[in-house]
This record gives sequence, C-alpha cells and structure tokens, in this order.
Amino acid sequence: MSKNIKISNAIIRRLPRYRRYLGILQTKGVKKISSNELSELIGYTASQIRQDLNTFGEFGQQGYGYEVDKLYKEINRILGLDREYRTVIVGVGNLGQAITNYTYYYKIGFKIMGLFDVNPKIIGNWINDVEVMDYSRLEDYIKEASIAIGIICVNRENAQDVANHLVAGGVKGIWNFAPIDLIVPDNVALESVHLSDSLHTLSFLIKNKNQRTNIK
Amino acid sequence: MSKNIKISNAIIRRLPRYRRYLGILQTKGVKKISSNELSELIGYTASQIRQDLNTFGEFGQQGYGYEVDKLYKEINRILGLDREYRTVIVGVGNLGQAITNYTYYYKIGFKIMGLFDVNPKIIGNWINDVEVMDYSRLEDYIKEASIAIGIICVNRENAQDVANHLVAGGVKGIWNFAPIDLIVPDNVALESVHLSDSLHTLSFLIKNKNQRTNIK
Repeated sequence: MSKNIKISNAIIRRLPRYRRYLGILQTKGVKKISSNELSELIGYTASQIRQDLNTFGEFGQQGYGYEVDKLYKEINRILGLDREYRTVIVGVGNLGQAITNYTYYYKIGFKIMGLFDVNPKIIGNWINDVEVMDYSRLEDYIKEASIAIGIICVNRENAQDVANHLVAGGVKGIWNFAPIDLIVPDNVALESVHLSDSLHTLSFLIKNKNQRTNIK
Repeated sequence: MSKNIKISNAIIRRLPRYRRYLGILQTKGVKKISSNELSELIGYTASQIRQDLNTFGEFGQQGYGYEVDKLYKEINRILGLDREYRTVIVGVGNLGQAITNYTYYYKIGFKIMGLFDVNPKIIGNWINDVEVMDYSRLEDYIKEASIAIGIICVNRENAQDVANHLVAGGVKGIWNFAPIDLIVPDNVALESVHLSDSLHTLSFLIKNKNQRTNIK
C-alpha cells in the first residue's frame, strides 16, 4: 500500500468482510473468482469490488479474475494480520472470559498474554493457561511484556482509567467493549464494539420494518 | 415519526449514540442542553445534530435547547425501547453466557426467557433463573412463549440453521454474533455483530497509524 493514500473509513470496514468471504472460498477449494462472482456472494457491486481492491494494487487480471489464495493473503497483509499482537484483557467478568475463550483470535495472531482484574477472588486464577493478575500491575506488565493491544471489558465508569493505564504502558491499540467513547492520543488506535448500540439498532429495525431494505 | 419517512442507515446508527450521551447527562442531573453543547460532547457538528433530531419532530426550541429527559424518552420511543422484547439465546458457550449475564439488557426491556443448546451436559442447567433447553424444542418454544428476538451465539457452520428455526418460529428480529451474513426474509430484522471484523479493523488501524484521524 502506498504510504500517501488515505483509505476511506468505508473501505476499511469492507476489507474484513472481503477477507471473511475469501476464507470461506479457500476452505471450499475455490482457486479463482471474478469480481462478478464475488459481487454475487458479498453483495457489493462488481465495480465497487474492483475499485476497492485496486486501491491497494493490481490483484486481478482482466478476463481472468482474482486468485483466491493470493488475494486472501494480500488482504491479511493489508489488515496487518500477518504478524502477532501480544494482547492483554482487562476485566475478567463474563464478557472478558468470553473474549479470552474465543480461541479464534489465537489463530490469527492475537495472543492473549495476561488477564487483569481488581477482584481478589479471581486474581491468581488461570484461564486457558493465562494468569489473572492484579490490575495495579497492568502498566508495568505492558512495558515488560511488550504488549501491543489492550482489550477493555470493564464497565463504563472504569473504562477511561483502564485506557489511561494501557496508553501509559505503551499499547499501540485498544479494543473497547465498554459503552463509552474513550479519549486516547492520536498515536493509539481505538476500535469500540458498542453492544448496546447494536441491540438498540435491532430494536429500531423491528419497530420500523419498512427500514429493512435500507440496511446493509 | 411520520410513516412515510425513510430514515438513513447513518441516522439509525447515530441514534443509540445520542441516547447513550443523553443517559449520561440524565445521571448527572443536566436538565437542558443546546445543540452546540451536545456537539462538544458527542463529536457531531451542531448542525448535524439539529438535522438528525428534526427528522423525528420538533424536540428543541430556538435559543433554548433540548430538554434532556424529554429527548431521552423520545429517542427511546423512536428506537422501540419503550416496550419489552421476549428474547431467547441459542448457543450457551462462553459468548452466550456473557450475553445472558450482561444484565444491562434486562433494564431496557430485553427479557431473556430461554436458552438453547445441543450439548446434553448443559441442557437442564439454569443460568440467572433461565433454563437451558434442548435445541430441538426451539421452534415450538418460540411459538408458545411469543418470543420476539433470537440471539445467535453458535458457530458459523450452524448459524443459518438456527436462523431458519428462529424465523419458522416467528421471531421479529435476530441479533447475530456468528461470523456469517445470514439470509432471512424481509419481514425479519437482522443485526449482526462481527467481532472478528472489528478486531481486524483495529489491526489495520495499528498498522496504518496515519488512518487514525479518518475514523469516527
């Protein structure tokens, strides 16, 4: 990817989806696919797909289509999934445990190195060979273990404090599940999953059935 | 809301966020707020905010601002959060349990009535006063208990089968956590949370730091 290109938010959101479908094609043994066939599958127009993928270089050949393996690998590289991210999870409640156990992450390079909580009853426990440590150790541990990503699974009231410690420790990115818009410096990447927002959107869609076709 | 207005996807996505901030203002005892103050808080422009809220009616008064309680209540109504949705969760693994325990949902009218799984070891167990039932009973139970929402917490391979049974049982909406784009009829609302897509976006943002300011 050229360093001077600014990729739009919309393309960034579409890339993981391309990756997902290419992964399915791979497991089915499909070797090549045209933008029209991809369009049928993913739901974006063929011209949108060609435009998106051209942003990052020449992946397809006119009249031949895309090589599935190659494109999958390239998208992995573009997404930064060709490396390992040493990761910690803060907040080992139900959601934190669910994320810890979501073994899928291990397969794609998000390695959970440590878990942190303030509850003395669970500090010292091990979940999937990962120790639950005292929250007061978080900042030092991030420095010692060169942690790249912090996952926040605490409640709204404590989330900004956790983010501050993660940033002070030197993480490169934060994956936030608390229902709050965190403030972090520009050099730290932030991605939030607002579960309640998503559920409220579903509620809206149920109430307003005529909206359905408007949603992609 | 006028029945003939089609609300854009973008506004639908912003509404839960307005709700979230208004909720915080309420707990702080704030009674009224101007679009400029809201803008400072939420990050959308004041004119965007006025435009969004005007879509649904006249909430604000020129030179006075918005009444927080009234606006919060109205947005709840627009989102359909002024009613109760009888809900089931299918797949009682870690994520399913996390969602079950995410008690926040109870407070806003998503009442978990039943849990379903295929694992005989956990069928018959109770989690938070809710029984884990045999997956084969799902469709009948939805009909008997007038279930409105089904939450899918199974793996990719089984998610479409679960969706089919939910639809056959008559749910009005599906909240999907499986990493797959489900196919459901137009009269069933569908909202998916693709956790892996979100994590891959974070990876991209870490790798491409210059993107940071482009993301909202």
